[in-house]
Amino acid sequence: MTVTREKTMYLAARWFPGHLTEMDRAECVELLGRSEVGRVALGDPEGPLVLPVNHVMVGEKIVFRTAPRTAIADHVGSGQVSYQVDEFDSYTSSGWSVLARGTAEFVDGVWLTEHDLKPESWADGTRTLFVCLTPTQITGRRVVPV
Amino acid sequence: MTVTREKTMYLAARWFPGHLTEMDRAECVELLGRSEVGRVALGDPEGPLVLPVNHVMVGEKIVFRTAPRTAIADHVGSGQVSYQVDEFDSYTSSGWSVLARGTAEFVDGVWLTEHDLKPESWADGTRTLFVCLTPTQITGRRVVPV
Repeated sequence: MTVTREKTMYLAARWFPGHLTEMDRAECVELLGRSEVGRVALGDPEGPLVLPVNHVMVGEKIVFRTAPRTAIADHVGSGQVSYQVDEFDSYTSSGWSVLARGTAEFVDGVWLTEHDLKPESWADGTRTLFVCLTPTQITGRRVVPV
Repeated sequence: MTVTREKTMYLAARWFPGHLTEMDRAECVELLGRSEVGRVALGDPEGPLVLPVNHVMVGEKIVFRTAPRTAIADHVGSGQVSYQVDEFDSYTSSGWSVLARGTAEFVDGVWLTEHDLKPESWADGTRTLFVCLTPTQITGRRVVPV
């Protein structure tokens, strides 16, 4: 693959020319709650695994599904887990990114019911496990257009 | 924060109900090349760091900028690095995700010129380092609407 002139111009002109500003925790949590898709990141000897999932928030906790015997399921309880959401507008070269870091554990039907989550009639029956990430750190930054 | 009924319905009905299919390496590289933004993932004792950047491709190599004394700059040369891109359509609950895993090194002006990358007149002068990730693994999957 060769790099075209157009690509080179893009590299020169559009590589996040804006200014980065930090967001506070409340704004980060709000953006997590408004996002439909995020990315679970797990440590792995071959490099971090980054896997998109859907999530819901319970306060600052992030809840998502996975299937038994997947990388996510195998990792739960054995180390740190991160969760990332972002949104970008390529026209204005602006956007934001939020990263929550903490530990994850499985939650069961009792916990889901207690928190008013009643998942039923899944279209796909394989992702039967529910994981809850409790963040110890939530950080975020915004790229403001110049 | 309470979980609303609407959110619960979303959780029940929309949590990736589609079917996952694996993509081959050529399709993954093409999607990397068409993406404007991706996420660098680095191992960290407090949980993986996941940081969005812009990138360009040189063959299968992924090139992006960073600034001195950032988490990315400090990590280069000291371990595995991953790079992730994705795209989702919330209306059809479909999308795809690509993950490249490998090692990263700094590249200099000579290398950039050799590969027809001539970054000039940056709007933001702080991201003066160029990092090249050489993937050892490139994998991807697509969520096909049901």
